[in-house]
Amino acid sequence: MATINDIGFSAAVNVLTAIAFLLAFAFLRLQPINDRVYFPKWYLRGMRDNPITSGAAVQKFVNLDARSYLKFLNWMPAALKMPQDELINHAGLDSVVYLRIYLTGLKIFVPITVLAFVVLVPVNWTNDTLEGMTLVHSYIDKLSISNIPTGSKRFIAHLAMAYAITFWTCYVLRREYQIIANMRLRFLASEKRRPDQFTVLVRNIPQDPDESISELVEHFFLVNHPDHYLRHQVVYNANKLADLVEKKKKMQNWLDYYRLKYERNPSERPTTKTSFLGCFGSKVDAIDYYKSEIEKIVKEEAEERIKVMKDPNSVVPAAFVSFRSRWGAAVCAQTQQTSNPTVWLTEWAPEPRDVYWNNLSIPFVSLTVRRLIIAVAFFFLNFFYVIPIAFVQSLANLEGIEKALPFLKPLVELPMIKSFIQGFLPGIALKIFLIVLPTILMFMSKFEGLISQSSLERRSASKYYIFLFFNVFLGSVITGSALEQLKAYLHMSANEIPRMVGVSIPMKATFFITYVMVDGWTGVAGEILRLKPLIFYHLKNFFLVKTEKDREEAMDPGSICFDSCEPRIQLYFLLGLVYAAVTPFILPFILVFFGFAYVVYRHQIINVYNQQYESGAQFWPSVHGRIITALIVSQLLLLGLLSTKDFEESTPALLVLPVLTFWFHKYCRNRYEPAFVRNPLQEAMRKDTLERAREPNFDLRTYLANSYLHPVFKAGDHDDDRYSVADDDGWMEEEVIVPTKRHSRRTTPAQSKYDGSDGLSSAVPEKS
Amino acid sequence: MATINDIGFSAAVNVLTAIAFLLAFAFLRLQPINDRVYFPKWYLRGMRDNPITSGAAVQKFVNLDARSYLKFLNWMPAALKMPQDELINHAGLDSVVYLRIYLTGLKIFVPITVLAFVVLVPVNWTNDTLEGMTLVHSYIDKLSISNIPTGSKRFIAHLAMAYAITFWTCYVLRREYQIIANMRLRFLASEKRRPDQFTVLVRNIPQDPDESISELVEHFFLVNHPDHYLRHQVVYNANKLADLVEKKKKMQNWLDYYRLKYERNPSERPTTKTSFLGCFGSKVDAIDYYKSEIEKIVKEEAEERIKVMKDPNSVVPAAFVSFRSRWGAAVCAQTQQTSNPTVWLTEWAPEPRDVYWNNLSIPFVSLTVRRLIIAVAFFFLNFFYVIPIAFVQSLANLEGIEKALPFLKPLVELPMIKSFIQGFLPGIALKIFLIVLPTILMFMSKFEGLISQSSLERRSASKYYIFLFFNVFLGSVITGSALEQLKAYLHMSANEIPRMVGVSIPMKATFFITYVMVDGWTGVAGEILRLKPLIFYHLKNFFLVKTEKDREEAMDPGSICFDSCEPRIQLYFLLGLVYAAVTPFILPFILVFFGFAYVVYRHQIINVYNQQYESGAQFWPSVHGRIITALIVSQLLLLGLLSTKDFEESTPALLVLPVLTFWFHKYCRNRYEPAFVRNPLQEAMRKDTLERAREPNFDLRTYLANSYLHPVFKAGDHDDDRYSVADDDGWMEEEVIVPTKRHSRRTTPAQSKYDGSDGLSSAVPEKS
Repeated sequence: MATINDIGFSAAVNVLTAIAFLLAFAFLRLQPINDRVYFPKWYLRGMRDNPITSGAAVQKFVNLDARSYLKFLNWMPAALKMPQDELINHAGLDSVVYLRIYLTGLKIFVPITVLAFVVLVPVNWTNDTLEGMTLVHSYIDKLSISNIPTGSKRFIAHLAMAYAITFWTCYVLRREYQIIANMRLRFLASEKRRPDQFTVLVRNIPQDPDESISELVEHFFLVNHPDHYLRHQVVYNANKLADLVEKKKKMQNWLDYYRLKYERNPSERPTTKTSFLGCFGSKVDAIDYYKSEIEKIVKEEAEERIKVMKDPNSVVPAAFVSFRSRWGAAVCAQTQQTSNPTVWLTEWAPEPRDVYWNNLSIPFVSLTVRRLIIAVAFFFLNFFYVIPIAFVQSLANLEGIEKALPFLKPLVELPMIKSFIQGFLPGIALKIFLIVLPTILMFMSKFEGLISQSSLERRSASKYYIFLFFNVFLGSVITGSALEQLKAYLHMSANEIPRMVGVSIPMKATFFITYVMVDGWTGVAGEILRLKPLIFYHLKNFFLVKTEKDREEAMDPGSICFDSCEPRIQLYFLLGLVYAAVTPFILPFILVFFGFAYVVYRHQIINVYNQQYESGAQFWPSVHGRIITALIVSQLLLLGLLSTKDFEESTPALLVLPVLTFWFHKYCRNRYEPAFVRNPLQEAMRKDTLERAREPNFDLRTYLANSYLHPVFKAGDHDDDRYSVADDDGWMEEEVIVPTKRHSRRTTPAQSKYDGSDGLSSAVPEKS
Repeated sequence: MATINDIGFSAAVNVLTAIAFLLAFAFLRLQPINDRVYFPKWYLRGMRDNPITSGAAVQKFVNLDARSYLKFLNWMPAALKMPQDELINHAGLDSVVYLRIYLTGLKIFVPITVLAFVVLVPVNWTNDTLEGMTLVHSYIDKLSISNIPTGSKRFIAHLAMAYAITFWTCYVLRREYQIIANMRLRFLASEKRRPDQFTVLVRNIPQDPDESISELVEHFFLVNHPDHYLRHQVVYNANKLADLVEKKKKMQNWLDYYRLKYERNPSERPTTKTSFLGCFGSKVDAIDYYKSEIEKIVKEEAEERIKVMKDPNSVVPAAFVSFRSRWGAAVCAQTQQTSNPTVWLTEWAPEPRDVYWNNLSIPFVSLTVRRLIIAVAFFFLNFFYVIPIAFVQSLANLEGIEKALPFLKPLVELPMIKSFIQGFLPGIALKIFLIVLPTILMFMSKFEGLISQSSLERRSASKYYIFLFFNVFLGSVITGSALEQLKAYLHMSANEIPRMVGVSIPMKATFFITYVMVDGWTGVAGEILRLKPLIFYHLKNFFLVKTEKDREEAMDPGSICFDSCEPRIQLYFLLGLVYAAVTPFILPFILVFFGFAYVVYRHQIINVYNQQYESGAQFWPSVHGRIITALIVSQLLLLGLLSTKDFEESTPALLVLPVLTFWFHKYCRNRYEPAFVRNPLQEAMRKDTLERAREPNFDLRTYLANSYLHPVFKAGDHDDDRYSVADDDGWMEEEVIVPTKRHSRRTTPAQSKYDGSDGLSSAVPEKS
């Protein structure tokens, strides 16, 4: 067990690292040359001038104003200053509610820390169980529950503490849920007109031999929502086209790079090789080569564009259907359309930039199969991921390398390299796995067939949390891989598991304190430094940037990364709740994390991050649910721990808590979750009525036109201005009415002809 | 272990009892005097003449036609003859789908039985493990898995059998789900106009200081469903009034009884005593006494009626809101109305006779608390019910009785009575508990706040199934009370539990065979005899019946009793699936049960039962779910059993099955369950359009008037014709328009005045 000195040393190292990061940040952010790395959000909002355009030549790159260096920490109060409403306006509700996760942490743990230090620390301290033992122990252990003799009546204090923690946490959670639900409702109510308010995504449109998908959609909604249907937008399978656009962009970058190179050194035409990253193949003139390549792709792209819009097979059985009113859309999104629940599935359309286009065409049966596959795959990933890593590690040792690559033998036999391989390589294999893990989880979620970025991130976050819970939390407590744990759990009875884990909990306190400092403190300080975007920005700036627009694109503001960040915050909630009644000494460290992270992320949200979508805090129910999970885990572990301390009277008293907590969770789900899932008719009607009174002649049809077109069709307008097909721009204006082909359908109302949707022939670029 | 002879003996006894019951039934049903006991359904449908009205005096009571006795089993083919569509028309969809549960049992188990006897029986039989052992064994054990030596490769046959069972069961279940979903949809589509198609139940209407509930409802729906709202019906808290009506009915019965007594013996005026069931108190003339009592209640009832309709506090915050079209109702039922999900809760109205009126006023928060209370209470009932029963049993033994009632001592010391007390009393305490159990469970479900009879029955059935699973199935297998089991489970690891239970499974085969015969065969034969209704009918007939109408009321056709019968069928599914791969010898017994029960219940449904409501087979998802549960249990138990047989290679192969089965369950839930829960708009629109074309001038408002009035207000018309308040009949015609009191609500459309609902003043009997 670590002594207080070890902890102190670790704390010093981490605090110094964090301070070094902060100082580096304070210095770098003041340099005008880094302005676009540390304040991209303001550029994107068009509220910041380019610093390069004004002042002396040197001042373009280096800040020479000495006074500004003295106030190097003034970003902190600045970050806290912006009022909430302005922040919502500036960065969106998602970001603001994301910050509330840290605030919730503070709200939960500040009173608990105070209470624990006032009540539990004296109770634990004034014993001498550990002094009589030969075990090495530290002051931290003297402050923990381990210092109380078995069977002591003092455990009543811990029992009472468990009740206090539960009730306080639930109180805070309920209040937060209520506040955030209200924020969401207010946000939705105050929002300006947005296409997704009027639009419903329809999936699994059945095949019909007589009609195209576009006609079918029109007829179906004219019949079943006669007073509300307005228009629809079919979805094209433009994945191949998107790939081409992507490829063209890459080629364009290379072309820019070589052109710049040529401009700087006009004496020598740059050359490249044709195959495999420019390393092999015949040598050619680079600028000519990429120019011809791009021309080839442009041609291909144009052909693909025509193919997509002419071929009925490139229309996937999904469509965005828009209604005359929000009420009509709310009704359609919440109701079942036909007696077969696997076709004509309707749901609220995500906002256009939130749509994950690739998954729109997945049929219903395939969805359930995919979910099964991913469930099984995730189970194996979670519990068996150590097996492939162990295999890689066994290859990556000395003998493995010597066998596989014998010519390296003299090299690896060098003592320094030998010790490096033996000491670091196995760890690196694990580290690489952990770095790519969020990507793997995101891939899994994509495979499951979710249709919006926001839901993908939420799903990945759940998976990541489960992984962290088993492999980091339980893995550290029981010091075994999840696979070993799984075996242990299977061979243990239901009441032994919390006991086994509970007993190990107090012994791991020092480990987790160090973890909080390394992962929490230093990690957050590293976040604000933005080392990776800094380097990449300057590289791009040097090699690619020619125009202001290029520079704009070279900025990488990033976003919150809900899928990997939120589960890591949840780990601190878990640690705090589990240790609050056991080793309260860990709580101040967690408090520092929450406070520091709140300030840092507030700064980042104001100055850096640029959210890709706005879901209106739809993630809060899962945040809430995970804190509840942590609370129940903490109760069960305390129960297990106390049952080994000859204080088994506590079991029934403690068993009440998980039951009550679970009930509280169900109550909250019934009471608040609908605000995050469903759209009430009253609000829709209110907004409709107001708007109709204000703008009676607003042309909704024109407003909604093309709002749900695949971005690759829209991209044609501004991205490819230099190399795009010339007649791309004209296609948006023309609108053709689709005459109904099927005359036998008698129930189609008469207005069908005049209310025709913007189907295949109108919504897609016509090659004229 | 029982030998084949024991089983044979038991079978003989049960078969003879069953045959005796059938013979008694065959004899009794032919007597005209019992006609109303065995064919009440036909009387209720008005399709059978009264047998008493024709023929000679003796023939009124006894059937003298000898030939009819010869064909005493001809009810069986008769019961099978009625085609399905006619049966749906005759008895409703609920009854027909209920019968399909038995049919599903046959479909699942006939091929499994054949397969098991062709494959497993030879595999098991051609071993001699048991012969070498000193254990007593029987032929049944030779046919079971116990006869195979540990580690034998023959277990592969059982493994394959488990796969075959799983796939066949899932196949049948999926097909049945599909057929029944289609039946339901066809049934709903073919139904005539019914009030519940247009009506939505709104609960938790918020309080408003300015408006009464009726006005509030009208305004809310006029604003938020302006094109669809038609009228509404507030709900009165008429529980006290219903009690009075009930009391009056009882008094009426006594009055009839004494009048009849006086008529038969005019020399003596009958007398009664005034208090405690007519046993104590002063002696009075019975007819005068009951007449005056009834008059008193009639007065009280009239006052209560006035109070209910005048007092705004007697209006509960719930209402039945009707719409102009099925489409409008379908939309309102499936959508959330306001941003607060705890108010204005809408759901499809159950059909009027299905409504459970007492629960309509329970507020939202109270509902979640009630659910928690019942969950905890049911947990204790399930696992701790043995404790109070053991207590009663300890009182009900010899010493307990002698201590409590010492004067009985000489009596209970008699050898016969002594042995009776010692042998039977403890069992009787348990038996009484088991008899009242469905009532307890139904009470629990009512406390939970469900608002329709059908959902109450479904909820009770789930509880009863859980109880049977733990206390009958597992209780018999492990021979321990559920409490002891709970302790054992808590101290056992997750992989030990199926092993422990699985090992005991083959040993209990003979017990369950006997159980099937006693509970299944004899129980079903007893059902057709209808001993209790037979006796009660003749008692009532003798003491109370004066008019034809009284006789009508004396019939007690009963109904299916889904809440207690279905879980017991599920027990046979469980036994069949668990034993199919272990001891296939039990399967023929279960097959006989399913076949016999199918015929008997088909007969009862055609001739006897009178369903109180029609839910359109809404119970099928839970039936399906429970069969899936049984399948998963059987897979886990086989897994446990095989893991003790040195055949652990089977574990991964068998683990696949529960995962697949669970996935299958989820798939079915997504695919078919919506048909039982939600109402698709397309169907609603289709029916609306058709109806509008056929009857363009139909007056829906008049049609819907009073359809959702509390039955106690309607009862006034026909039940109490002799003693009801004279001017009760006129109140239904008048309809008063409620002027809107709140003038500030500008969004209320203009038609409000002309489309006024039938609120307080119109829908309730006015005392004029």
